[in-house]
Amino acid sequence: MAMPSPSYTITLRVEVPASQRATSTVVAAVAEAGAAVMGVDIVHSSTTKLTVDVTCDTVDGEHGERVRDALNALDGVHVLKMSDSTFLMHLGGKIEVSLKVPLKTRRDLSRAYTPGVARVCTAIAEKPEDARRLTIKRNTVAVVTDGTAVLGLGDIGPAAALPVMEGKAALFKEFGHVDAWPVCLDTKDTEEIISIVKAMAPVYGGINLEDISAPRCFEIEARLREELDIPVFHDDQHGTAIVVLAALINALKVTGKSMEDVRVVVSGVGAAGSAIIKLLKAQGARHIVAFGRGGALHRAAADGDEHRRLIADNTNEDGFSGTLKEGLVGADVFIGVSAGNILTGADVATMNDGAIVFALANPTPEVDPIEAGETAAVVATGRSDYPNQINNVLAFPGLFRGLLDVGATHISPELLRVAAVAIAGVVSDDELNPGFIIPGVFDVRVAEAVAEAVRTEAQRHLDQQRAEGDGSPIAAGPGTDAKAVQAG
Amino acid sequence: MAMPSPSYTITLRVEVPASQRATSTVVAAVAEAGAAVMGVDIVHSSTTKLTVDVTCDTVDGEHGERVRDALNALDGVHVLKMSDSTFLMHLGGKIEVSLKVPLKTRRDLSRAYTPGVARVCTAIAEKPEDARRLTIKRNTVAVVTDGTAVLGLGDIGPAAALPVMEGKAALFKEFGHVDAWPVCLDTKDTEEIISIVKAMAPVYGGINLEDISAPRCFEIEARLREELDIPVFHDDQHGTAIVVLAALINALKVTGKSMEDVRVVVSGVGAAGSAIIKLLKAQGARHIVAFGRGGALHRAAADGDEHRRLIADNTNEDGFSGTLKEGLVGADVFIGVSAGNILTGADVATMNDGAIVFALANPTPEVDPIEAGETAAVVATGRSDYPNQINNVLAFPGLFRGLLDVGATHISPELLRVAAVAIAGVVSDDELNPGFIIPGVFDVRVAEAVAEAVRTEAQRHLDQQRAEGDGSPIAAGPGTDAKAVQAG
Repeated sequence: MAMPSPSYTITLRVEVPASQRATSTVVAAVAEAGAAVMGVDIVHSSTTKLTVDVTCDTVDGEHGERVRDALNALDGVHVLKMSDSTFLMHLGGKIEVSLKVPLKTRRDLSRAYTPGVARVCTAIAEKPEDARRLTIKRNTVAVVTDGTAVLGLGDIGPAAALPVMEGKAALFKEFGHVDAWPVCLDTKDTEEIISIVKAMAPVYGGINLEDISAPRCFEIEARLREELDIPVFHDDQHGTAIVVLAALINALKVTGKSMEDVRVVVSGVGAAGSAIIKLLKAQGARHIVAFGRGGALHRAAADGDEHRRLIADNTNEDGFSGTLKEGLVGADVFIGVSAGNILTGADVATMNDGAIVFALANPTPEVDPIEAGETAAVVATGRSDYPNQINNVLAFPGLFRGLLDVGATHISPELLRVAAVAIAGVVSDDELNPGFIIPGVFDVRVAEAVAEAVRTEAQRHLDQQRAEGDGSPIAAGPGTDAKAVQAG
Repeated sequence: MAMPSPSYTITLRVEVPASQRATSTVVAAVAEAGAAVMGVDIVHSSTTKLTVDVTCDTVDGEHGERVRDALNALDGVHVLKMSDSTFLMHLGGKIEVSLKVPLKTRRDLSRAYTPGVARVCTAIAEKPEDARRLTIKRNTVAVVTDGTAVLGLGDIGPAAALPVMEGKAALFKEFGHVDAWPVCLDTKDTEEIISIVKAMAPVYGGINLEDISAPRCFEIEARLREELDIPVFHDDQHGTAIVVLAALINALKVTGKSMEDVRVVVSGVGAAGSAIIKLLKAQGARHIVAFGRGGALHRAAADGDEHRRLIADNTNEDGFSGTLKEGLVGADVFIGVSAGNILTGADVATMNDGAIVFALANPTPEVDPIEAGETAAVVATGRSDYPNQINNVLAFPGLFRGLLDVGATHISPELLRVAAVAIAGVVSDDELNPGFIIPGVFDVRVAEAVAEAVRTEAQRHLDQQRAEGDGSPIAAGPGTDAKAVQAG
């Protein structure tokens, strides 16, 4: 399955004899070594020698070294250096802070900074809800991690997690026009993380928790939601759940089945698994069995973990107690958020006709998607090199765009559900087929559709709170007209 | 002293009769009310009416209302609305997060985010000092406040402090090309602030403490310097001290006196006062007497405050024990970082010939600078509307530029001193005179001069640490060549 990929693009700087055939020999050698040549640039030329940059996609680091060795083995050819475009792209980081106002003249300075800024500070001190209008709070989200569950890498710590958080911030801006800032915390203490996020909240209009390991992530999210007046969203739970539900809505359309009737098997009861189960139930799913490493979760099994017990209490109404493979027999939907290669095509073949398989473990899915596709009607993965990629970037930028736009204070289960329905709705009936149940990550319609659905639901919720007299000053929303603009 | 200022620029939208003279009548009325007219724009015109935007500088909010009333009193004139350009400039905040890398294609995404980013994370996990090279840490500073001592406004809280921190971040970028991010903490607990800043440090290459009240600011800075491996700088202390020393070096040149011989009176023993005293001593000053609200600080006075006792132990060698006015008699230098209008021109007249007066209280200086100038040889203030403005923006952008460039881990007293000497040196002997002892805030030479001096001194310090075997991996600096670029 290993193919040359743009995440392993290298550039080899090569010295070759200045002959008619030298460069084409080099290109041929690179291709023969299994790399995909992207381009050749002449860096320097003399009467006897050429210096050439050869850029190519490789499979992995070791493959890059084999390509280099193949070139060095050619007569008169020397590789001077080899650079890796992924690392080059990361030099100095991927985001920066930019000015939204000019600071070129004394006039600018006296408004943006002293003495003028003092009046703006005073206005906020007198009317705290104005902070949203007169500061970056209105459009700013913290991307908070402790680096304990980063991608598939596990507990690599806050410093090593920063490239992911920067990437997340970049995606927030590119897809949602949201200003997001990385907060990588050098502590794993649940209480300390909660108190830090509470203390730094004045700058932010929302909190995106990221790559914090279970079960601490549940407690942290629940407590922050209770104690803060801005929305708190753990992307590994709800971002994944939203996109899974969106894909499942469309997969059921393709297979002509209904959410209420399908038998759903969920493999993995971590952050994503439990959120997926909750959201599927909110959309009407009634028959779900969840599997951990020890088999099906059911009420009878006395398990000390509160989180697993909660799942057991709300799924598996028939008290099934076997293994994942046993549970898969006759099921309509498999959703894997667990580990790679735990199922075979033969296991998928035991599912009901018109089976739906979401094998989302990354980078290696629970079952080879090609094998699964031999009997399943619809297959999705978390990978970008197969059809139907389940990618959180479809959810979080539009979701926070919508929340910030209305000054939401809260994220309800219904809000997550309407976001999923909005993503599913981007794929029109004309476009829908087993190979296209979910829009691509670069589909510009997605973020706006999600934002619009979220704005409507969040506003409805705020209005309801206000009608119930529960409207704190902050719940009154950011307002759109400047205090500065007063009636004459 | 109240003059119309650009920090109080308002725009009045006015409906006037469509006559030949209507607009000029409006402009004349605005001018007569004491505002400075900046411009007139016709918004809408019909056969009977004109709608006009009149933009003018006013003295304060009340003055703006008087201008509006004056217009409403004119025959047939109605003010429709009045807007304030300082507030308009602040709508939505003054900074934003921008992308440094493209995210337009799958190829971009697979390098900046998954799957490529995982290799960068792994590289940092294996070699933590690479974080500086491969993330925003290399160029990023936290601007940390608890909102307890904001400008002259006092304890207005973290939300109301945010406009100042955003302004600071904007100045960092504009003048130092440093990415600075506001961290406004909703806690005043010294230990909690220390532990929060330590926990969030992985993202930052330096910490700028801002507007934290004394004496907590001393403990917070001292502890963070001890416990973090990135430079920590409390701008209200050292930023002010650097610029004061720079100005004093040049003022002494103008008056032909020497640092060693002058008698210096410092009024104010808060954050700025104590840092000024330390830095003047580092530059060779020997005769300093500091005054608090209760008069001169001297060893004999048993004062419970550790911070004041430290000042008393290191100043006032003759044990002077009188009031500020008494202490001023025969002094060469007055440096005020205390409160407005505590001295008169007559007090300044009791100073030695060639007196230097820095009256830095804001917005009202310790003594009217015009009065002081009647007998003093050199006068400086913190205000932009008098010559010789002592403004921290001359120090912090270049200082952090230099620190980040060499990957400094530490700020020494000597580093602060060379920064001050560098600022003083920007004013050439040809330019130097009593009305120009310090460069203006928009002088582009300043930040680069400070950065260069800081780079040299910080690098010297790092090299020395390494020679002494005290070089932690982080002290080894960020390096300049990419790990990604390997020898072939």
